[in-house]
Amino acid sequence: MPLPARPNIAIVGATGAVGRELLLILHQRTFPHKSLRLLASSRSAGSTIEHCGQRLTVEELTENSFDRIDLAFFSAGASVSKTFAPIAINQGAVVIDNSSAFRMDENVPLIIPEINGSVLDDFPQPGIVAVPNCAAIVVLMAVTPLHRAVGIERMVVSTYQAASGAGTAWMRALQQQAHDYAQGRPYTTDVLGRQYLFNVFSHNSPIGPDGSNFEESKIIAETHKIWGDDSVRVTVTCIRVPVLRAHCAAVNLTFRQPLHEDQARDILQAAPGVKVVDDRDANKFPEPIDATGLDDVLVGRIRADLSQPPNMGLNLFVAGDQLRKGAALNAVQIAECLVQSPARTV
Amino acid sequence: MPLPARPNIAIVGATGAVGRELLLILHQRTFPHKSLRLLASSRSAGSTIEHCGQRLTVEELTENSFDRIDLAFFSAGASVSKTFAPIAINQGAVVIDNSSAFRMDENVPLIIPEINGSVLDDFPQPGIVAVPNCAAIVVLMAVTPLHRAVGIERMVVSTYQAASGAGTAWMRALQQQAHDYAQGRPYTTDVLGRQYLFNVFSHNSPIGPDGSNFEESKIIAETHKIWGDDSVRVTVTCIRVPVLRAHCAAVNLTFRQPLHEDQARDILQAAPGVKVVDDRDANKFPEPIDATGLDDVLVGRIRADLSQPPNMGLNLFVAGDQLRKGAALNAVQIAECLVQSPARTV
Repeated sequence: MPLPARPNIAIVGATGAVGRELLLILHQRTFPHKSLRLLASSRSAGSTIEHCGQRLTVEELTENSFDRIDLAFFSAGASVSKTFAPIAINQGAVVIDNSSAFRMDENVPLIIPEINGSVLDDFPQPGIVAVPNCAAIVVLMAVTPLHRAVGIERMVVSTYQAASGAGTAWMRALQQQAHDYAQGRPYTTDVLGRQYLFNVFSHNSPIGPDGSNFEESKIIAETHKIWGDDSVRVTVTCIRVPVLRAHCAAVNLTFRQPLHEDQARDILQAAPGVKVVDDRDANKFPEPIDATGLDDVLVGRIRADLSQPPNMGLNLFVAGDQLRKGAALNAVQIAECLVQSPARTV
Repeated sequence: MPLPARPNIAIVGATGAVGRELLLILHQRTFPHKSLRLLASSRSAGSTIEHCGQRLTVEELTENSFDRIDLAFFSAGASVSKTFAPIAINQGAVVIDNSSAFRMDENVPLIIPEINGSVLDDFPQPGIVAVPNCAAIVVLMAVTPLHRAVGIERMVVSTYQAASGAGTAWMRALQQQAHDYAQGRPYTTDVLGRQYLFNVFSHNSPIGPDGSNFEESKIIAETHKIWGDDSVRVTVTCIRVPVLRAHCAAVNLTFRQPLHEDQARDILQAAPGVKVVDDRDANKFPEPIDATGLDDVLVGRIRADLSQPPNMGLNLFVAGDQLRKGAALNAVQIAECLVQSPARTV
C-alpha cells in the first residue's frame, strides 16, 4: 500500500534546524500534500511558522498528534523518535526518521535514495524508514559510485563537521562567539561549554569502549548496512570545525580492483547528486560555504594515492550541506520514493 | 668548530609572525648571545621592536647585513633564504632556515632536535640547517616515537591548519572577517581572496603534477628525509581551518610490527616534547587553542584502528603551535644543539 498521492504530513521537531529545512524543501520541491501539521515540544507549541504564504501554528507533540497522518517526518532526537514513532505507525503513518533511534534496526531500511532507494520497492507501510547519519550521507554519496565500480577494500575518513549537526542552538552559539570576539568580550559558552570560534575539537559524542566516539561508530556501521557489506574496512576520525552548516571530509580509499584517477573522475561526474569541483589550476575545490544551500554533494581533490600500488588507492575531499542532503533533503527524497514508487524521480 | 658560547645573532624576517616568536623564545629560554641584529625588508626597516626591555631598531636586509654574525635565523620565505643564506654563510655564519629553500638539499640537515638532533654532532660550520615544514614537525613529533618502536608501514594524514602558517597578514585577515561578520559587513578579502571565517578550504599552495599540493608533497618528502627511510608510505590531505595559530592533524598509522594501543600510549607519554591529552570520559582531547603558546605537541584520540588486523594500526589526533614547535621553537632548539653540542639540553 503506497502512500496516498497527497498525504497528510506531520513534522515532529518543526522548529529545529532540520525541521525548518524540511518545510523549505517540501515547498521548493512542491511536494504534494493535503495537510501539514507542525509538532514540537510544549516549549515551542503555540509559536507560528510561515510556510508558502500561510502562518502555521506549532502544536504540542502528544500521543494524539498522529490522527489521520499518512507521513510523519521525525527530527527531534532519538528519544522522541523512540517514544513517538511507534505511536505514529500504530495510527497508520509512514515515519521517516532523521534520528539514530532505528537506523541499525534490521527491520528498518536505512536509505540514501540515489544509492539504495530500490530497497523501498518492497517497503511494507506503515513502517519506519531511517535517514542515515549526516556525515555518512555526505561521504557515501561520493564514495558509493566508486565502490560500485571496483569495490572499496578500506576507507580512512577524517571529518570537518559543522555546528548545524548539533542543531540551531550550536549555530547561534558559534555566531555569538564571533560577536563576542569582535566586541572584546569573553566567549559566551552557556550552550557550547567551550570556545568554538577559531578552534577545532573532537566530535562531542560520547566515547565507546573501543575508543571511537558514537559519531564515528555510526558512520562505520551505517556504511556497512547501506552497502550491505560488512567486510569493507572503515576507520573514521570525527572533528568539529567552526563552520555553520556544511560537513566536509577527507577520504582515503583502497580499492579491491584497480581504478585510474581519470576513471574515478568520470564516474563521479556521472553520479547523481554529486558535483565535481576539482580545478587544480585555480586551486578551487569543495568548500563548506559553497556546499551550503546546495542539494549536490561536492567532491574534489580527486587524486591517486601514491602510497598505494598504482590505481589501487585514491584521495578525495567532499563537502555537503548537513541540513539538506545530510538530513532534510534526503528525508524528502525518501518520501518521494514512497509516494511515487515505483516511478521515482531521483 | 661549534658556535661561540655567546654568538652574535641576526634574525631575518624579524617583523613577521615567526620572527617575533623567535625573539620571544630567545628571551624565554635566556638563549646566550652577545648581540642581536633584526633584519627585514626595506618596508619594515626603521621600525622598532621591544626585546628584553630594550627597543631594537629593525635594519634593512642587505648583502652587508651579516658582518660578524655567528648565527642567522631566516624566516622571510624561500626566495629571501635562497638569496641571502649563501651570503651569510660566506661571511662565516651558521644559518638556521625556517623556509623550504634548502630542506631537500642533500647537504643540508633537516632537523627536529628531539628526533634527529644527533645529526648535528657532525655538522660542519658555517652551513645551513633547515627547520622542517610546520605541519610535518607537529605530525612527526607524535609519530616518530611509534616509528622507532615498531616501524611505520603507512601513514594517512589529514590536516587542520591554522592561519599563522601563511603569516601575520592571514591571522589579521581572519580576525578582520570576524569583525566584518559581527558588524554585518561583507567579508574583507583583500589579503585572503576568499571567505575564511566559518569556512575550510584545501591548502593554498600550488598543485603539482601528481595532484598533491606543495604542502602535502613537503610533508611526504620531509618525513622520508628526517626518518632516513624512503620506504615509508605516506599520503596527506592539507586543509586550512579558521584557527589562528596551532595546526592539528588526524593521523592513521599502519605498523610494521604489532603495537597495542596501551603500549603506544606509554611510548607517547614518555616522548620528549609530547604531551598526551586523552581523556575519554571528559571528552577532552587536543585542541588548537590549548596548544597555542605551548612548547609541547599535544596528542590524543589514541585508539586502535579496528579496520586493520589487531595491534597493526592506530589513530591519533595531534595539535601543535605552528609558530612555536612548528617554527621558532624548533629553530632555537637547533641553535641550542649547535652552541652546546655535544651536551644538548633537549
